[in-house]
Amino acid sequence: MNMIRGKQQKSEVEPEELASNTGRQIRLHGCIYKIRKMKGFAFVLLRTKREVLQCVYTPEKADFPLEQLKEESAVIITAEVIAEERSRTGYDLHLISVEILSEPEMESPIVINNKIVDTSIEKLLDYRPVTLRNEKQRDIFKIQEGIVCGFRQFLRKEHFTEIHTPKIVQSGAEGGANIFHLDYFGETAYLAQSPQFYKQMMVGVFERVFEIGPVFRAEKHDTSRHLNEYTSVDFEMGFIRSFYDVMEMETAMLHSAMLYLKENCAPELTRLNVSLPRTEEIPSIRFHEAKEWIANEYNRKIKDFDDFEPEEEKLLSRLVEEKTGSEFIFVTHYPSKKRPFYAMDSSEHANETESFDLLFRGLEVTTGGQRIHNYAQQAAKMERLHMDRDLFDSYLMMHRCGMPPHGGLGLGLERFTARLLGLENVRLACLFPRDINRLLP
Amino acid sequence: MNMIRGKQQKSEVEPEELASNTGRQIRLHGCIYKIRKMKGFAFVLLRTKREVLQCVYTPEKADFPLEQLKEESAVIITAEVIAEERSRTGYDLHLISVEILSEPEMESPIVINNKIVDTSIEKLLDYRPVTLRNEKQRDIFKIQEGIVCGFRQFLRKEHFTEIHTPKIVQSGAEGGANIFHLDYFGETAYLAQSPQFYKQMMVGVFERVFEIGPVFRAEKHDTSRHLNEYTSVDFEMGFIRSFYDVMEMETAMLHSAMLYLKENCAPELTRLNVSLPRTEEIPSIRFHEAKEWIANEYNRKIKDFDDFEPEEEKLLSRLVEEKTGSEFIFVTHYPSKKRPFYAMDSSEHANETESFDLLFRGLEVTTGGQRIHNYAQQAAKMERLHMDRDLFDSYLMMHRCGMPPHGGLGLGLERFTARLLGLENVRLACLFPRDINRLLP
Repeated sequence: MNMIRGKQQKSEVEPEELASNTGRQIRLHGCIYKIRKMKGFAFVLLRTKREVLQCVYTPEKADFPLEQLKEESAVIITAEVIAEERSRTGYDLHLISVEILSEPEMESPIVINNKIVDTSIEKLLDYRPVTLRNEKQRDIFKIQEGIVCGFRQFLRKEHFTEIHTPKIVQSGAEGGANIFHLDYFGETAYLAQSPQFYKQMMVGVFERVFEIGPVFRAEKHDTSRHLNEYTSVDFEMGFIRSFYDVMEMETAMLHSAMLYLKENCAPELTRLNVSLPRTEEIPSIRFHEAKEWIANEYNRKIKDFDDFEPEEEKLLSRLVEEKTGSEFIFVTHYPSKKRPFYAMDSSEHANETESFDLLFRGLEVTTGGQRIHNYAQQAAKMERLHMDRDLFDSYLMMHRCGMPPHGGLGLGLERFTARLLGLENVRLACLFPRDINRLLP
Repeated sequence: MNMIRGKQQKSEVEPEELASNTGRQIRLHGCIYKIRKMKGFAFVLLRTKREVLQCVYTPEKADFPLEQLKEESAVIITAEVIAEERSRTGYDLHLISVEILSEPEMESPIVINNKIVDTSIEKLLDYRPVTLRNEKQRDIFKIQEGIVCGFRQFLRKEHFTEIHTPKIVQSGAEGGANIFHLDYFGETAYLAQSPQFYKQMMVGVFERVFEIGPVFRAEKHDTSRHLNEYTSVDFEMGFIRSFYDVMEMETAMLHSAMLYLKENCAPELTRLNVSLPRTEEIPSIRFHEAKEWIANEYNRKIKDFDDFEPEEEKLLSRLVEEKTGSEFIFVTHYPSKKRPFYAMDSSEHANETESFDLLFRGLEVTTGGQRIHNYAQQAAKMERLHMDRDLFDSYLMMHRCGMPPHGGLGLGLERFTARLLGLENVRLACLFPRDINRLLP
């Protein structure tokens, strides 16, 4: 028997360690991103875990011919670290020798090593395994990781427990037709549209819970803002006094995440030229007031009194930004008929709910609200909606056995990322998007 | 418009803040877990986010009759904090008044507020929304959260990027019959058995990636160690010299997670009486040597030369622990025919792979290994296996366009949790398990 001792052999330096190795000869690995031949020398850009490093090849210093290097080869270089102001990272790596670990079998079918991958969105997605190697493409997902880390760090600090709930379910939480069917050992099952029922149940256990995981919507929309599978950031909290507590919590979470990005994703934010939104405070407005405001300001007729048209969301965001400077706006008190059966109805107006959406730069990124915690109240609402209570036995078990007042929200990670980075299509904020026409890669 | 400023009104104290409030009158919320009537007074146990607190009711001090309190009511208490050695948390809360926020409509169908929920596993799972409220039941999942946090903290420190990959896929990575079918807008799609293809693709992008998310296996096994949906901890890393690098990384990850638990989950570990395993080093043994060792030591005939029987995994773990004191054992060089098509074959023995499993207390909890990164080699292996390469076009694109040598692993979170906590059935380490007979709750 051998013994594995959890030690990594460190014969190479990390890209973060260049500063402390100035003037020294180091070994470092990466993939060759781009070779730029100049007069008498060449720049060799090396893609490492996070940064693209600038190497300099000169025939005088290197013990190998430049022709040995191919773009997308995986290599270990030996090089001297030279401080160089003009280099983006502040250092050049003067190549001495190279060990080639692997070589591509063909050139990339699409040019990926320019500033921008200059192609259609369809091609960008078709060739995802290679187009994601583009520096700015991968920056999107490093920032997305930062958003998730920021959210998670905040929620844990606020005593939320992270949970994992099933994605194969016997009944959908959101209702409607937009649910995927599944053959489950001869029975019909569904893919979860949200972790709604489960996170509510877990409020009875841990009081505050969150989950960041996939949800599935069989919507046939083929728009720039819909995905059929997306990552939902869900939290749910007990002992709220009203859904305003949920909005306060979301505001603090967003603010905390923006600070996290500032501290931890500065290189990516700079490369993508992102300006982070102000999140110290977010205005809120009632749904019907917002509808009227938009109608008055833009001289539009209200067609749908129960929901926004996409155009109205954009116009509202514009109005709010003009008036308050905020790129976010909470819209509250949505009509009951547009909200699911577990939404708590307003005590003031029977047709409204204690709920909200959050719009960010013209697009809804969050839906949330207070839920019904009282069994009699939930049973009565289901009766009014002609729902079969027997199908929701285990969900209603929690109400019957006692639940604190509670509420929560779901935030679409890809939508939020796309809005934050100014991407015109939500697919661009998803590594491998699923839409009505796309199952690959 | 109102302004939401991300502020929580704090008129109550957190359970962690009792020490700094000794002798003071405080407000604090929770659910009434248990009422124990004594002579002339009563203990009222209050379930809060993480701890169950002991409150003392006396008619002299309280301004309300004890009968107002019901188990599973959600309440805000006003009480005096008294240091009390005999109380588990070190403090008693002497009740002064109570605000009742909600009451249950019925008693729990099962007794949940004793030390143990004394019932069958089937009932325990049927009544999950309430049985999880039991103190020790929820401790399991607080520790599971700790495991995940420990893993994640370690992986981020080691420069892994966290990713989110699709669960609806066009082809399965593991092959075989154990894959769920799905109707995707008239096309057949599948539920991902693992993020294998995607995490490999992402090695080409970020070099080191991980994902902690659901995977789906349509296995018809109805055993104590199988789930049809489970949480997989997957990581994949580039620039490895052999699969031993992956095993070193896992050993370090496990060690780091155990330290995390010690620091962050002490109350739960104590209540569940868990002894953490030693993880400073883990022995490794070749598969065929392990088979022979077990056969010799226990006088067993080898029936299956390509895989372990479950009994053999237990016997091997026992032998290894006797000999080395380790409750973990890496088994390496599994036969090629039992490993998927992307597994790198051994250069020494054509029938073996550069792969490993990790057994923990008698059960496999991890499968990992080096993957084929060279296109010609992967294509040749697929040909040998009579696979249709066209179906794997986008997967093979990464090989063709160049990939560093790489490998990784998948660890079953529920299995690992169950082994760590000494739970006899993996279902007990899953909030809402899915098995061949269970889709609810």
